[in-house]
Amino acid sequence: MEAHIASQSYGKSKVRLTKVVPSGAAQDWHDVYEFAVDILLYGDFEASYTDGDNSKVVATDSQKNTVYVLACESEFDSPEAFALILANHFVGTYEQVSGAQVNIHQSLLNRIDVDGQPHPHAFTGGTSEKRYACCDISEQGASLTGGIVGLQVLKSAGSAFVDFVEDRYRTLADTRKRIFATSIDAKWSFADGDSAEQANSSHDAVRKALVKTFAEHYSLAVQQTLYEMGGAALEATEAINRIDLSMPNQHRVPFDLTPFGLENKAEIFVTTDEPAGQINGSIVRKKPTE
Amino acid sequence: MEAHIASQSYGKSKVRLTKVVPSGAAQDWHDVYEFAVDILLYGDFEASYTDGDNSKVVATDSQKNTVYVLACESEFDSPEAFALILANHFVGTYEQVSGAQVNIHQSLLNRIDVDGQPHPHAFTGGTSEKRYACCDISEQGASLTGGIVGLQVLKSAGSAFVDFVEDRYRTLADTRKRIFATSIDAKWSFADGDSAEQANSSHDAVRKALVKTFAEHYSLAVQQTLYEMGGAALEATEAINRIDLSMPNQHRVPFDLTPFGLENKAEIFVTTDEPAGQINGSIVRKKPTE
Amino acid sequence: MEAHIASQSYGKSKVRLTKVVPSGAAQDWHDVYEFAVDILLYGDFEASYTDGDNSKVVATDSQKNTVYVLACESEFDSPEAFALILANHFVGTYEQVSGAQVNIHQSLLNRIDVDGQPHPHAFTGGTSEKRYACCDISEQGASLTGGIVGLQVLKSAGSAFVDFVEDRYRTLADTRKRIFATSIDAKWSFADGDSAEQANSSHDAVRKALVKTFAEHYSLAVQQTLYEMGGAALEATEAINRIDLSMPNQHRVPFDLTPFGLENKAEIFVTTDEPAGQINGSIVRKKPTE
Amino acid sequence: MEAHIASQSYGKSKVRLTKVVPSGAAQDWHDVYEFAVDILLYGDFEASYTDGDNSKVVATDSQKNTVYVLACESEFDSPEAFALILANHFVGTYEQVSGAQVNIHQSLLNRIDVDGQPHPHAFTGGTSEKRYACCDISEQGASLTGGIVGLQVLKSAGSAFVDFVEDRYRTLADTRKRIFATSIDAKWSFADGDSAEQANSSHDAVRKALVKTFAEHYSLAVQQTLYEMGGAALEATEAINRIDLSMPNQHRVPFDLTPFGLENKAEIFVTTDEPAGQINGSIVRKKPTE
Repeated sequence: MEAHIASQSYGKSKVRLTKVVPSGAAQDWHDVYEFAVDILLYGDFEASYTDGDNSKVVATDSQKNTVYVLACESEFDSPEAFALILANHFVGTYEQVSGAQVNIHQSLLNRIDVDGQPHPHAFTGGTSEKRYACCDISEQGASLTGGIVGLQVLKSAGSAFVDFVEDRYRTLADTRKRIFATSIDAKWSFADGDSAEQANSSHDAVRKALVKTFAEHYSLAVQQTLYEMGGAALEATEAINRIDLSMPNQHRVPFDLTPFGLENKAEIFVTTDEPAGQINGSIVRKKPTE
Repeated sequence: MEAHIASQSYGKSKVRLTKVVPSGAAQDWHDVYEFAVDILLYGDFEASYTDGDNSKVVATDSQKNTVYVLACESEFDSPEAFALILANHFVGTYEQVSGAQVNIHQSLLNRIDVDGQPHPHAFTGGTSEKRYACCDISEQGASLTGGIVGLQVLKSAGSAFVDFVEDRYRTLADTRKRIFATSIDAKWSFADGDSAEQANSSHDAVRKALVKTFAEHYSLAVQQTLYEMGGAALEATEAINRIDLSMPNQHRVPFDLTPFGLENKAEIFVTTDEPAGQINGSIVRKKPTE
Repeated sequence: MEAHIASQSYGKSKVRLTKVVPSGAAQDWHDVYEFAVDILLYGDFEASYTDGDNSKVVATDSQKNTVYVLACESEFDSPEAFALILANHFVGTYEQVSGAQVNIHQSLLNRIDVDGQPHPHAFTGGTSEKRYACCDISEQGASLTGGIVGLQVLKSAGSAFVDFVEDRYRTLADTRKRIFATSIDAKWSFADGDSAEQANSSHDAVRKALVKTFAEHYSLAVQQTLYEMGGAALEATEAINRIDLSMPNQHRVPFDLTPFGLENKAEIFVTTDEPAGQINGSIVRKKPTE
Repeated sequence: MEAHIASQSYGKSKVRLTKVVPSGAAQDWHDVYEFAVDILLYGDFEASYTDGDNSKVVATDSQKNTVYVLACESEFDSPEAFALILANHFVGTYEQVSGAQVNIHQSLLNRIDVDGQPHPHAFTGGTSEKRYACCDISEQGASLTGGIVGLQVLKSAGSAFVDFVEDRYRTLADTRKRIFATSIDAKWSFADGDSAEQANSSHDAVRKALVKTFAEHYSLAVQQTLYEMGGAALEATEAINRIDLSMPNQHRVPFDLTPFGLENKAEIFVTTDEPAGQINGSIVRKKPTE
């Protein structure tokens, strides 16, 4: 065989965990976490590829068991904290594991309000928005990432798109009256790469800043709003130094009413998923000397 | 050809519409409706099947246009009202159309709160829960249906399942401590079959009754909770006489921790989508004489 | 409570089974079945709804076990045959079960050809097309249904749509050069309602007739092609008396090239999923006296 | 604002194109391409982020138009060739564009065989397998990638997994009789980074090598089979120097029949999608001196 391995990794994906944490005198106040965990291990596993020698292979089934066992044995209050626990476990337990990447997507549960009181253990769920965390440990060090994926927002005013490149391929007219709909993906790096202490406060501050800026910013381009949102997130918490934003432009296409004897007033739109614009930007904090 | 047509119908599916309804002095308070509309027409269309004679066929493309045109020309404040407008249009406009069924799924938009104030035209979205409406007009009459589909709820206490059939095929133990997670599909018939006046008040009353009962009812079976929820919905509004409920049992399977030297305390579960239980029931109002 | 139950049913959905059937001297020739099974039971279960009394409830977990146990203990060579085995089991085993509906979707595996030889136990899969079977047993009798769902086909010539209703809502031009793309759903009833003997031969004959007719028929309307396909299926096998066809019109919309100085020649299209036309028809065999 | 942009890009995603290429005397032999195109542009777009100045922004709507216009004006016989045309266009046409990444996923159409003859313009489709191509042009140069994603395969013999790490977290037994099911994702780099000439011959050679090796290799680990498949692909064509393979282990979990008085013979399995193993490897050609 004239081939060799340039890189390899393996792990377990979509390990889905529900953890109930009871508290209170009657143990009937419950916090409930629903996580989907993806694990990827790096290290000295080449023999399993070249020779089918599994002596250093931690079975992905064992990795799955580890998720549930550590969920039982550990205390955590954020996906970031649990990602850190898991990544440290794999790197710390197995000599042959040189690196571990743990991704967690958390399904959000909102406590049901019954007659003005939060219910102790009943929730609604089913949002497209997931909370995200990633802990990546390699020989170069550890990094911890928090995030939000799939946060759907829409504004029906306060969005324009004008004065863009005019050439053969352009048919879109300038518009000052359009719908701006997107699904926000935001991922941020913690300044303190191996601590999850500020995970929840950072998440709440970033989410609030993103949504408020989306609502209030008069948008001349999705790009501009993205930049303002990123800046507002960095201002909202000192715990993060960088935020990566991806915001598809989920078009609401004006339906042309003129063939039917009606006037187009930017009130009737075709809702579309595809094609979609895709706008990406990474916003970082300026250092004082810059 | 020794074949003939026993039944036929045709229409347009997944016509997606966004309608903005401005109000206020500055016209900057917006109500925004996002509907996915499915149309099915019944009538004298056999010649298109047997001979490719399309002279009576209202093109599905024309049906799609109709959705946008009527959305522009009509006022409505619920999917039920728009379904009624569309179904009446098709039956009333074309002699060859003997019946029409219009289904609408509404994506829900929640007004963003900025510093304690509802924003005039910015929203979050992305819930699995959709509002549903159906207007069905046939030679037998008209019926109007309201509904909720995909409303995810979960409770981590207050749910038992015991004393069910014990036989060769049973391996599940009795349990008084389980998670009850489901996605509520509820559809209700309006007593007044051709009016959408009470659509919004009914929807709100039914939704509130379903969620509250789910949270508070001590469940001996998903079946029992479904029945209580249906009864509470009928009590909550006189406008409906029947409610059909479908509630999958989305299992959270206890992960067995004993091989790892840990105790099972009903706190660590495997989150699953499949297989799922499926519990259905139609609850109707008892007539006084029954 | 002023409510009562109009109807109820319950069961288990998405029970996914892989069965390997070895044969040959070395037992290394394998037939592999991959089924997703949905079970719904009807009967005397009202007490579980009204009182949480589960004494007559066969747990959906037990139903799931039954699928795997009967898959082991039974011989079958079609989803129809296994659906019949399961439905008969539930109705025959439990006095309180008055009816059972078993739906099966089979994922298709195609034996890999290696150097011109079919491999004994290696397959490709992943088609959108599933084979379908349903056995429905009620107090009124038993019916057995075979089917195909999700069979994607496309033809880039031989399809026209002209001379349809011209009115205010029409903007679509007549066309004699369009792409006809659809996903065929076909379900057929066996004349002999409680036998699966002809399931495989019928499936093969119907599928062949549908695909051939789709390819060869010059289409004046999706409706017309549907009718021809249904008729061809009935001609292809005496074992069935009725076929229900649903064929969405998955539009390929001509992209208008004229703004770019190019001619529209019906060669460049926008591929769409939605909105889609939806054409339905049930074709039955004419009785001799008709 | 104490923020600045670390990186940015934007483009259009999911531009779906169907192109018909007629040939033959009667122009009735059709080749049909169905592509989903994703475009991402890099360059001097910061002003749109910081100031909402769109003067250098090529609207994503214009990018979409470009896909259809170039599809009309260009000849190509592979997704690689069209990706190259598009990426070169954006970099070559706009001074402010310093880099372009074009991804294409091709839906596969298989010509229908009617009575032993390939039909000139009728096809089946709907496979999970897509053909993939990517052209990435940056200031560092151009790279062209071919690929296959979502190719489902399953073998019900010839797969073992034994002698892996034994520790507290392991519960899985050694097995020499398991089902090996996966969805192959393979992406390969062309040695000649700016030519698509060998795209089709390479694709065919790689696909054949992957499938044959999957079927024939006795697997001691998914890792080992992946390595053999990658090596076979490199042997099959000189046009590529590297292949990246990702193969989830889509578990078929033995259903334990012993509670029901039956023997486990590795014939009855629970089909699962999640959790899944995830095995990755990049295989490169050894240089002669290594």
